[in-house]
Amino acid sequence: MSRSIAPERYAQRLERAQSIAAEREVGALLVGPGADLRWLIGYEAMPLERLTMLVVPATGRATLVVPRLEVAAARAASGVEHGVVDLTSWEETDDPVDLVARLEGVATAAGRGAKLLVSDRLAAAFLLLVQARLPGAVYGLASAVLSDLRAVKDEEEIGLLRRAAQAADRTVAAICAGRLVGRTEADVAREVRERLVAEGHDEAAFWIVASGPNSASPHHGASDRVIGAGEPIVLDIGGRIEGYGSDITRTLWPTGGDAARGPDVEYRTLFGTLERAQAAASAAAVVGATGEEVDAVARSLIAEAGFGNAFIHRTGHGIGLEGHEEPYLVSGNQQPLVAGNCFSTEPGIYLEGRCGARIEDIVVCHSDGPDILNAAPRSLAVVSGV
Amino acid sequence: MSRSIAPERYAQRLERAQSIAAEREVGALLVGPGADLRWLIGYEAMPLERLTMLVVPATGRATLVVPRLEVAAARAASGVEHGVVDLTSWEETDDPVDLVARLEGVATAAGRGAKLLVSDRLAAAFLLLVQARLPGAVYGLASAVLSDLRAVKDEEEIGLLRRAAQAADRTVAAICAGRLVGRTEADVAREVRERLVAEGHDEAAFWIVASGPNSASPHHGASDRVIGAGEPIVLDIGGRIEGYGSDITRTLWPTGGDAARGPDVEYRTLFGTLERAQAAASAAAVVGATGEEVDAVARSLIAEAGFGNAFIHRTGHGIGLEGHEEPYLVSGNQQPLVAGNCFSTEPGIYLEGRCGARIEDIVVCHSDGPDILNAAPRSLAVVSGV
Repeated sequence: MSRSIAPERYAQRLERAQSIAAEREVGALLVGPGADLRWLIGYEAMPLERLTMLVVPATGRATLVVPRLEVAAARAASGVEHGVVDLTSWEETDDPVDLVARLEGVATAAGRGAKLLVSDRLAAAFLLLVQARLPGAVYGLASAVLSDLRAVKDEEEIGLLRRAAQAADRTVAAICAGRLVGRTEADVAREVRERLVAEGHDEAAFWIVASGPNSASPHHGASDRVIGAGEPIVLDIGGRIEGYGSDITRTLWPTGGDAARGPDVEYRTLFGTLERAQAAASAAAVVGATGEEVDAVARSLIAEAGFGNAFIHRTGHGIGLEGHEEPYLVSGNQQPLVAGNCFSTEPGIYLEGRCGARIEDIVVCHSDGPDILNAAPRSLAVVSGV
Repeated sequence: MSRSIAPERYAQRLERAQSIAAEREVGALLVGPGADLRWLIGYEAMPLERLTMLVVPATGRATLVVPRLEVAAARAASGVEHGVVDLTSWEETDDPVDLVARLEGVATAAGRGAKLLVSDRLAAAFLLLVQARLPGAVYGLASAVLSDLRAVKDEEEIGLLRRAAQAADRTVAAICAGRLVGRTEADVAREVRERLVAEGHDEAAFWIVASGPNSASPHHGASDRVIGAGEPIVLDIGGRIEGYGSDITRTLWPTGGDAARGPDVEYRTLFGTLERAQAAASAAAVVGATGEEVDAVARSLIAEAGFGNAFIHRTGHGIGLEGHEEPYLVSGNQQPLVAGNCFSTEPGIYLEGRCGARIEDIVVCHSDGPDILNAAPRSLAVVSGV
């Protein structure tokens, strides 16, 4: 499953998580299915109604608790296969929360009022059961320990993000070269899904094809609207390779082969502003800059051009095993970027009900400056689309 | 999005949920993205790191809180479009939990120590924030109110489940008729995904192709193993139409065109036992029977034939907007089935490391008896596979 991540990486990650947990007097981390679990032991667990939970005490061995049905899948996870964690399973009529509560680190922590940190995406159904079983503990989020660790990517992870970005670049190039006019957004989205996989992703993850007035809605999906000549298309797409995501946005303008149907001066002005703002944000993403500083670089350029109210979202989000994770480039984030952070830079300008535009790249923060993983041209892609 | 569900249904569902909430002295339901939200107002929200929450007070208007980016998508949801709930949005730098806490029903509930019920899949990150902001409330799960309601499907919902089941039947037929021997499980799974959609699903949801010894692992996915002649394949697949799922399992046996490579007596005995057990479970799924009684019907037949230890999971699970939901056919579930319940009947027999088999249908519990939505032949599909 995670062939590119060396097995010893998981032991190192657990050790670092445990060392921080011990420092902060955390009893244990309780990690359900999701990116934290995959990052810690390489197990891509299904989010089931049956409890799967990795219990990581501040000291000693970690234990992965799985329903019996999942034992074969869990054994194949790198961290289990290589003996980094113990595996224990429960039967259909067992109480898995009781099993968790009796594990080393958990019961003792609850007894002395210590902290139990649950993974951020753990379902409320499980959290309430754990709280009811161990009312003496103080509950917090595992991200307090894990998110700074996960936000610093190692070379293997950056390699996967780079491969994903390149596959996304090729997908954009193919869509720009193909027919657009007269097709529905949904039909183009179908092609995007197929091409994301054909170009090397394990799976397609999302496919926004927002044409004409839909381009003014940042999280539009792909509707039955037929794409016309002489209007913008915001294409925001991504897939995953071994869990690591791509996420690219380009704005296209199909003319239908009629040069007279190109973008007007107002749209060119809007797009020129956006292009400068996006480039400036990427360039500002250096070690030591805070998330809000990078956001402000893009935001001030857009505001100076008179589009301040039309940039209605943050400048970017971290990316890794989750499509959106730390660090966020947003007002209020005063944490300085460090080498190994990977994130999007994606300002947008949206004129409600009329049109919009967005440009997005994935950027790695290196000690010698920002490394932009995407290489597809960022300028407005004025294409024939027929 | 949910064209088959009449708009007035959402107002009725909210009203029923509120009426139960009022009876039980619940202050409000706090419903995040997922099946509960879709069932209540027809909104298929993305599970984002930004808070989306439907706040349903025991009396008065419900309010959907969304990040500004999602306003356009939220407006298109049936319950919002038809004015069943109010919509309010928050900006990137706002505190959405504070917004929720100040809504009618929530603040007052927290003040007088009343119950706030959160959706079962709400992320722990949001639940802990709500608990910290409103420490005076007593927290429980929204399923306490919603799961009995959601478990009784109306005719529109059964219609969608039936369409999905029929699309799944056709997919199974196509796979049985095609080449299997010499292909990898993953390659067959790719075909399954494509056919599930081609046969009428909006999307493919899962695709277990478990051949040879892999058939002994109930939740095997689809690996790079090459399928051989003369071995079983457990095919467990499903997709969704307007959110409602199909879920069918059939067991295939490709001979490679060589009659001598058919199943041996031991496997035929195992499969005959399974077929009788599955049919008996479906027949036992009548109004008034409990989940554990239906489970016991299948289990006792399998145990009598000497395979008791090889049936390592429950007999079935409810299905609707979630692939697994109430009612569960499992030991310990003493709740009687009612008309409108929809669930799988899917016993399996697994000889670890060697081989296994499973048969699964979706069944609707009607006042005049069980209605089996799947019609694909249940017997062992001995096919040439070349």
